[in-house]
Formats: sequence, structure tokens, C-alpha cells
Amino acid sequence: MDALEIGKAIAAGRLTAVAALEAAFLRIDARDKDVGAWQAIDRDQAFANAAARDREQPRSPLHGVPVGVKDVLDTADLPTAYGSPIYAGARPLADAACVALLREAGLVVIGKTVTTEFAMRTPGKTRNPHNLAHTPGGSSSGSAAAVGDGQAPLAIGTQTSGSVIRPAAFCGAVGFKPTWGTVPRAGLKMLAESLDVIGAMATTPAAAHALVQAMAGATIDPAAPAASPPRFGICHTAAWPTVEHASAAALDEAADRARQAGATVVDVELPTPFGKALDAHDIVMTYEARRMLAHERTRHWDALSPAFQAVLERGAAASDADYRQALDVRAECRATLAEAFRSVDVLLTPAAPGEAPEGLAFTGSPDFNRIWTFAGAPCVTVPGLTGPKGLPVGVQIIGMLGDDARAIAAAGWLHALLH
Amino acid sequence: MDALEIGKAIAAGRLTAVAALEAAFLRIDARDKDVGAWQAIDRDQAFANAAARDREQPRSPLHGVPVGVKDVLDTADLPTAYGSPIYAGARPLADAACVALLREAGLVVIGKTVTTEFAMRTPGKTRNPHNLAHTPGGSSSGSAAAVGDGQAPLAIGTQTSGSVIRPAAFCGAVGFKPTWGTVPRAGLKMLAESLDVIGAMATTPAAAHALVQAMAGATIDPAAPAASPPRFGICHTAAWPTVEHASAAALDEAADRARQAGATVVDVELPTPFGKALDAHDIVMTYEARRMLAHERTRHWDALSPAFQAVLERGAAASDADYRQALDVRAECRATLAEAFRSVDVLLTPAAPGEAPEGLAFTGSPDFNRIWTFAGAPCVTVPGLTGPKGLPVGVQIIGMLGDDARAIAAAGWLHALLH
Repeated sequence: MDALEIGKAIAAGRLTAVAALEAAFLRIDARDKDVGAWQAIDRDQAFANAAARDREQPRSPLHGVPVGVKDVLDTADLPTAYGSPIYAGARPLADAACVALLREAGLVVIGKTVTTEFAMRTPGKTRNPHNLAHTPGGSSSGSAAAVGDGQAPLAIGTQTSGSVIRPAAFCGAVGFKPTWGTVPRAGLKMLAESLDVIGAMATTPAAAHALVQAMAGATIDPAAPAASPPRFGICHTAAWPTVEHASAAALDEAADRARQAGATVVDVELPTPFGKALDAHDIVMTYEARRMLAHERTRHWDALSPAFQAVLERGAAASDADYRQALDVRAECRATLAEAFRSVDVLLTPAAPGEAPEGLAFTGSPDFNRIWTFAGAPCVTVPGLTGPKGLPVGVQIIGMLGDDARAIAAAGWLHALLH
Repeated sequence: MDALEIGKAIAAGRLTAVAALEAAFLRIDARDKDVGAWQAIDRDQAFANAAARDREQPRSPLHGVPVGVKDVLDTADLPTAYGSPIYAGARPLADAACVALLREAGLVVIGKTVTTEFAMRTPGKTRNPHNLAHTPGGSSSGSAAAVGDGQAPLAIGTQTSGSVIRPAAFCGAVGFKPTWGTVPRAGLKMLAESLDVIGAMATTPAAAHALVQAMAGATIDPAAPAASPPRFGICHTAAWPTVEHASAAALDEAADRARQAGATVVDVELPTPFGKALDAHDIVMTYEARRMLAHERTRHWDALSPAFQAVLERGAAASDADYRQALDVRAECRATLAEAFRSVDVLLTPAAPGEAPEGLAFTGSPDFNRIWTFAGAPCVTVPGLTGPKGLPVGVQIIGMLGDDARAIAAAGWLHALLH
């Protein structure tokens, strides 16, 4: 059952919020020692919240559904550490806006999921649930692993480079990064303000869409899968030279099966400004991160990982003029992106170079994700295929800016085809 | 001396940071009982910081300069209450990014300045320093009053409707709201994420620009006043029917003196989408505020003022479709704003309907400010004129999106003319 089906069962009285939470904890208890998706859990409090929801009329289609909250989001009733020893045991003053909004919609917070340090590269304790010797990806490591492992039907992720789409692909979850600006960010520990997006992990695109709507305080009205086969544009992007066989083959297979099911699949070239997007994204991210984390940089430098220090130092090397130029590149990307959608509904690309890399030190390359985050476009990981090592491989669907419902509908269509 | 002159004197050894802070406290001690600009001060800590700066080489042109911090910004070493009893005595986990950045630039925090409740309408204790029976304006009430009264050469303000430009005008300070997105907002208690801007109060446009650059972590390189007379476009806007004699006369006088000094002054009409901007701004602000303050709304409703509750209820009345339409209006405003600048460098309008209203309950109308905040354009309050009640009256200069340096240069030119 995806989260919407769980919500339906609860609304119909066939399931309770407490029973849905018990099911989550049954799986968590069996798997947490190995997977390590959770940073903080208060079981009594979670069950008390679930029981309270069971005494109410449903507030939304996700009423009573359990959800994991990435630990870069503030929670007043659970410790919040942002993946950094600086904040170990810290207790913020308030819930993040998106957490308060999903609680208002009746969802039940299971606990906080592991994040990399300030949502950059330095990993936490989480392992890939499909092979514990491999990374779950990052930075939304715990959220992707929890959903991919059946420990939670929903979890919150955030993306500044590829932190929702890539770990979802590695862990076999659906990841959804909506158009930039969709979900309010009050109470998010921001990394790069003009890039950071709050998104969702789920088991279907429709459920991920519903979670984003709940977190945005919008009416939950998830897009149904496309009624007729969508028009897909295969887009290799400048990251293509880094693609591994697993992702190239998955892209081919997804395209073939879509064609066989009646979809149009054509090749699409990106407008020329996108040729500068990978470099410009890095300048914007590091320049902003250096400033966004100024308190930690100036007061707690020695408590930052060497990898994070290196990001902040890259941000110092970028001049104000470099940053303004990079913002100009982004404005050009945004202004021309629609050209890529002239004859297609959505773009189809790899979600990551290949399967999850072996080892836990490296969360994998976000180079198939960064240009879309940079442009602000909605992206969806569609899982369902498997690589040569037996690990999940996802494909990525990209929509036009603000055209999230169409991207979700196409993802839902493809997801059904691959399952 | 403006903040840049103070910084120069400190760098030259003619002044110390401690002496600059002593001068500020001399005025604060004489006036605080009446004006009430300050929410929280830790004098020992402020002097310790100033003494530490005096032992260093200057880190920036504002090294050693005292600054007030609006109490909607987090400070780890001073209580932060956001103007709400919910957070009385609260101590955040970290400094806001802009506070850490100005400390890195060597500025010395005097203390926290009074804000209205969550930067909306419900006022704090501050009075207008030019007449204690009148409002200082809001929401940056304490920052405007402190700078307008000579208690601080610099202070931080924030604007979602007219919360920098209007109180600066009422208190006789320079207010500068830069282009949306200029100053990082980590650690700002956000009210409406797509509108909120962090800006500056100072005694000259150049000093306000320098503070914004410091808060953005950019090189401090303030625009010099325009060498040749700027081209001004007088723009009455849809708020003109509410203008009072004081502001209409001040606009005429500023225009006349600019013309006499060789400036071009022409009338400018705004592109048609701006006709919908006042209504659309209110929808965006209230829709977002309802979601941004979801924690306070769902957990602390009874601790919110009736006026703030009414804002959140207006936000509930706006549908998702209303909000999307309002965002479309904004996109049209942004896309067409440049048309108003075809033959002028900057626009010139009232900064407020008139002088500061009598009484402390109403902080004044932001209707001469909201459309510019909505479009994201840079705005500067230029004080120097006086109304029939003897209170300060400011005019407002507006620049094209991203053209902050030109707006500051024109404001500097006009400011010099009016002083």
C-alpha cells in the first residue's frame, strides 16, 4: 500500500493510525541495526500522536500516515542535529513550517532520519538497505533508506544538488523534488538559499506528490497517472560521459517499454546555456553555503568535516562577480528551458551515474541532478529497474518549471509500467 | 559621521570601536526611556566585542562600527523573541547568517531592536523619536527609531510589505531594501518567504549599501553618489488617492530641487500588471504567512494578537488557485518592470502616505511600498524633508531589479541635495 492507500484505509476504518505506525516499527525494529536510517525516535510520543489522530475525523487524505523527517528540519519535540556534532542534542524553538503543516494534515511523525553533515557530502551512519556494503546516497540518506526498505511509507528529503533524486534511485524509492519555492523553508537548516528545495520520498509518484502538497499547506489533490501515454524527451546532458552501463541500460529499457506502451520517445537537446550549468551550480552552491553557514564557519570551524571545510573554501574562492555571472547563467537556463519541452511533456534522463557505489564514504555523484536543481525544475525518481549488482537503478523525469502535476502524472504512468 | 566615516576614523586610529560604542550608549542612555528602541542589550558583551575589534587590523570598511539587530533575526548570545510573547526569553541555536557575516566584517552588535509581532502590524514599545506621541512605523520600529535618533549609526531592518522604507521615513533615517534575494535569510524568522527581504537603516544611502554588502558577505564597495544628475521618473502608483499633503508636497519639493540641480524629472506610468499588484501582494503575503507560521498558528493560537490572527485567517481565505494567480501577476510585474525605466534611471515616489500617524497602535500604511516589495525591486528612503507637524517625511527611490548600485547612487545624489 502506498501512503494514499494507507490514508484511504484509515479514513474507511479498515486501518488505524496506530496500526500503521506499528507496521512501520515492526520493520524498523527488524532492520534498524543494519540500515541505520534513523537519527532520533521518541516511540511513546509517536504512538501518542497516532492515537490522537485515531480519535479524530480525517483531516486530509494522508491522515494517520507515518512519515520520517530529515534531520535538517527543526522539530520542537525531537532533537535536531543537522548531521553535525555542533548541534548534537539540540532542541529548536519550533517545528519547521513543513513539519507543522504535515502534522496539521494529520500525518504522524515517526522520527528524524539521518542526513549528511548540513546536507552536503559527509555521510552519517545509514547503509543501503539493498546491500549494506553500499552507500544509500545522500544527503537524504535516512529518508531514502527508510522508504526504500519499507520502514516508512513517506519521508521528507531536501535537495541542493541531487539529495532527493539520487538517494531515492540508490534505495529504490520514488523521490520528488518539486519546483523551487513550492514548500516553505522556515525551520530548514539552509545550505544554499537559492537552490535548497524540500521534497518527498514515497513508494509511488502520487504519494510523493501528496506529501509535497501537505508540506506546502495546499489541498492534497495528487495527479493521477497520465491517461494517455506521455511524450518523453531523452536528454543525455553534459554528465553523460560519466554514465555507467547500469544507468544507460536502464534508460534504454525505460524508453523501450514506454515506446511499446504507446509513448512517443524522442531525443532532446538542452538549450546552450545549460552547457555552463554544472560549473555555475557549483559556484552558486559554494558561494551561498559559505555565507549561509557563516555562524558555524566563524564559530565552529574545527567541528566541521574536512570535506565541508573544502566546500566553504571553494565558496571563498568564488568572487562576487563569479557569483553574479553564475546567477546570469541560471536566468538564461530558466528563460530557455521551455525550448526543450516544445514537442515533449517531460524529459527522461538517468537519476544517477549507475547503481549505488560500494562503500559508505562517497554518497555518489549528483551530476545528473545538479542542472535541474539549478534551473529549479521539478524532478521525479522512478525506480523499478535493477543493475548488474542487483541494486536498484532509477530513471529521472523532469518537468517544466511549475509543471509539477504533469511530471508526476508521467512518472506515475512510467512507474506503473515498471512494476 | 555616517557609518563609513566612523569606519574610516577607526581604521585611521582617530577613533576606537569602544569609543564609537560609548557614543552610541551615551545617546541610548539619554533616550531609551522615552524612545524604547531596544528589546535586549548586553552591554558588557557589546563592549567586550568592541575591545576585541580594537585589538585587530580592520577586517572591512565597517570594522568597529556599532549596529542594531532587529529582533526577528536569531542571535545566539542575545535573547530573540520575534516580537511575540511565545518566544519571550528564547535563545536560538545560532546567529542568523547576516549577523554572523556582519560580525565577520568587524561590526559590533549593540543589541536587539524592537520589532512588531513577527514583523506584521502589532506594535512593540517603540515611540517616534521626533514626537513620542507618534508611531515610529513598523515593523522595523526599533531599528528606524534608533538610527533616526542617533542611538546607532546602523541597524538591520526587514521588509515584507513596507517595513524598512516606511519606518525609516517616519523616523528620518535612510532605509534600503535591496533586490529580493540579496542578503541570506538563514536565521530570519520568515513571514512570507517569497517577499521577505533583509535590509538596512543608516544615515546615508552609501552607509546603508555598505551594511547590506556586509550582510550579504560581499566585498564592501558602496556606490558613490551619482556624478551627473540622475534621470528620475515620478510615479504616483495606485496608492496615490491615499497620499496626504505632507508626502505630495515632499515629492514636489524633491522633484523641484532635483530639476534645479540639473536632473531630468519626468512622469512615468507603471505597466498594466501593476494595477493588480496591491491585491496580489496581500494574497501572497497572507497565504504564505499562514503556512510559514504554521507552528505558532497550530500550537500557540491564543498567544497571537487578534490582528495577527486576522492576517492568518485572510491567508486561509485565499485558495491555492488564488495564490497561483497572484504569483502569475508577480511574474508579469517582474517581466514588465523594465518598461518603466526606459527613459529614467530610477523612479521617485512617496515613501509613505504622509508623516507618522499620531498614536502607537497603527504603524501606518505600507501601500506606497508593497508593490515594489512584491516585484522584488530595490528601494531607498531618502529623508531630509519635514511635514506640517514637524515630523520627517521621506521620498522613495526605486531601482530596476538587481540595479541596486544605481538606486543607491541616485539616492546619494538626492540625499546630498536635501541636507
